[in-house]
Amino acid sequence: MSPPTTSVTRMRAEIEEQPQALRATLGALLPRIGEIAALGRDTRQVLFIARGTSDNAAVYGSYLVQVRTGRLATLASPSVATAYRSRLDLSGVLAVALSQSGRTEEIVETLAWAADCGARTLAITNGAGSPLAEAAEVALVTEAGVERAVPATKTFTTALAALAVLGIALAADAEGTAGTDGAAGAEPLDAGELRSVPDEIERLLATRNDLEPVIEGLAGVEGVVVSGRGYASAAALEFALKLKEACYLHAMGLSFADLLHGPIAVVDDRTPAIIMAADSGPTLAGAVALAGRVTHAGATAYGIGGGTALAAACAYALPGPRLPEWLAPIGLITAGQLLTEALARRLGVNPDSPRGLSKVIQTG
Amino acid sequence: MSPPTTSVTRMRAEIEEQPQALRATLGALLPRIGEIAALGRDTRQVLFIARGTSDNAAVYGSYLVQVRTGRLATLASPSVATAYRSRLDLSGVLAVALSQSGRTEEIVETLAWAADCGARTLAITNGAGSPLAEAAEVALVTEAGVERAVPATKTFTTALAALAVLGIALAADAEGTAGTDGAAGAEPLDAGELRSVPDEIERLLATRNDLEPVIEGLAGVEGVVVSGRGYASAAALEFALKLKEACYLHAMGLSFADLLHGPIAVVDDRTPAIIMAADSGPTLAGAVALAGRVTHAGATAYGIGGGTALAAACAYALPGPRLPEWLAPIGLITAGQLLTEALARRLGVNPDSPRGLSKVIQTG
Repeated sequence: MSPPTTSVTRMRAEIEEQPQALRATLGALLPRIGEIAALGRDTRQVLFIARGTSDNAAVYGSYLVQVRTGRLATLASPSVATAYRSRLDLSGVLAVALSQSGRTEEIVETLAWAADCGARTLAITNGAGSPLAEAAEVALVTEAGVERAVPATKTFTTALAALAVLGIALAADAEGTAGTDGAAGAEPLDAGELRSVPDEIERLLATRNDLEPVIEGLAGVEGVVVSGRGYASAAALEFALKLKEACYLHAMGLSFADLLHGPIAVVDDRTPAIIMAADSGPTLAGAVALAGRVTHAGATAYGIGGGTALAAACAYALPGPRLPEWLAPIGLITAGQLLTEALARRLGVNPDSPRGLSKVIQTG
Repeated sequence: MSPPTTSVTRMRAEIEEQPQALRATLGALLPRIGEIAALGRDTRQVLFIARGTSDNAAVYGSYLVQVRTGRLATLASPSVATAYRSRLDLSGVLAVALSQSGRTEEIVETLAWAADCGARTLAITNGAGSPLAEAAEVALVTEAGVERAVPATKTFTTALAALAVLGIALAADAEGTAGTDGAAGAEPLDAGELRSVPDEIERLLATRNDLEPVIEGLAGVEGVVVSGRGYASAAALEFALKLKEACYLHAMGLSFADLLHGPIAVVDDRTPAIIMAADSGPTLAGAVALAGRVTHAGATAYGIGGGTALAAACAYALPGPRLPEWLAPIGLITAGQLLTEALARRLGVNPDSPRGLSKVIQTG
């Protein structure tokens, strides 16, 4: 890869920094698996606390924890804490708060509330020394470096890497304590697979796939549907958010089960669909079927990942990462980031500073 | 009200049937509070299982249970059960599945999975004798009658009424057992307030507010943002889903905290915002502030509910129901249903049978 020049957007430069950011993050966090497992030992479930991009990371975490560690994992509604000031019984809950800056007050306040309600607490943040890192019993600080472009890229993928470390810690513990009674999905997660991710993202970035057919297809439309299922739904939600933030597109990100429950009605020849999937796994067949269904409705279907099966069902497809399903979202969203940055420039938007947004968001 | 004539859409007729459907549902379910409380007694939290419109009802339920009964309440990811076949420890969980037909296989299968994982089970459905009703330990069957229009109306509001009954049952139990240690929000919910809802919906429907300014504002746009917070976010999500289903609008339904985390960038002079709020409660001030913010971004803000404060901050506002915050969503969505039906006809869509949708949705 050639180094970024000054004519390159910050967003593009930060996309290219991800292999290094992921390496540094894994280097810092993988040695802490024992500490994380100890924190999780007395808890039976995970409650994620997040907003925006971090909420999409939490969706990834919820699938990983549920599918591979035998624990229930769901997303909190922060306003229950901050607006309604309700007091819940959260004993046995591991509250995991995510915020790239670590300074979004609503998230800090909700994590403190969870602790007051009896939860154990963990933070995932790029903000070393931030209020969120200080508020948590264990803080997993990602090593993404300073992120200047408003659309989060490397802080998102490093948060996914931190969640993968959390999954490894909780899965190892489930295996150790559950015995033959253990959760069906509680086979150990392979840290070696996770360690291979930075190289694979580097390879993906170096490949320079032809984005033009997708850019061309999205440049003239008002809306787009971005869909995935299971783990990949986190990448779909995040790609849709990027398209809203940086391209002002009415991008609807949703799992394909949810899409079929109503929103499928908006899909037509003016509303393309982007379908994201890992190259293997139990949701791949559904992704292929969905591509056929939206094509039948007159829409253009674009694929990201999903191997040859999804590519064959789509008008055009970008290859996904060569990663197992549980790690594929890190590569799938990298493709989405590249598309977002290129489309923004095509539309005349500076992706580094979209209208209406700032880097730390406070919601009252 | 004059009786519907044959020239009236089924959707409109079913909107008008809601007072009667709500009365019948409350008549059937309020006497069962003791039975519901007994089921919930050994559980510490609620896990909702739903898709589409029922998912939006579950959002309402999650706020009600958390704010008023001191229990954690979150939404399940059905694919954890149906695609990944993960086995979780759900002891102490009350699994509440919602499906208007009671025949969506994914929901039936996920509820059976929850029972296998140790959860107690309750169903809320309009399908008496349906597989979902049969699968649950306790089935709360709503009395909406047959619903023929594809966009759900009376099955949604009666599901909210059933959730209100569930909330009363769990709150009464929290009060009885928690003593002075009880959850801050666990003051008893007033069944009398709930009983007043059908009359209030009847009054709202008879008022015949002028919908034209909103219809006019939505008729020429591609996208719209629909926002609320807390309880009202359930009505906002559902109104957005109706606009997608029946008007093919790119309607983005989200809580306003989530809106400010990114999607606010799409709001401009071609993207109006609809803000829904109860006439009182801790989220009202934020709703008023949001109306100011989107107006500042060049968008037209429409209000539904929120009293005189929200009306003053919007270009045009429809009055909301005279109901306490915990019951307001039933009236707020009624206004949204009327707008959806009128806008669909204006756009030349038959709201009774939008493209791409059927009444029972199976997602593989």
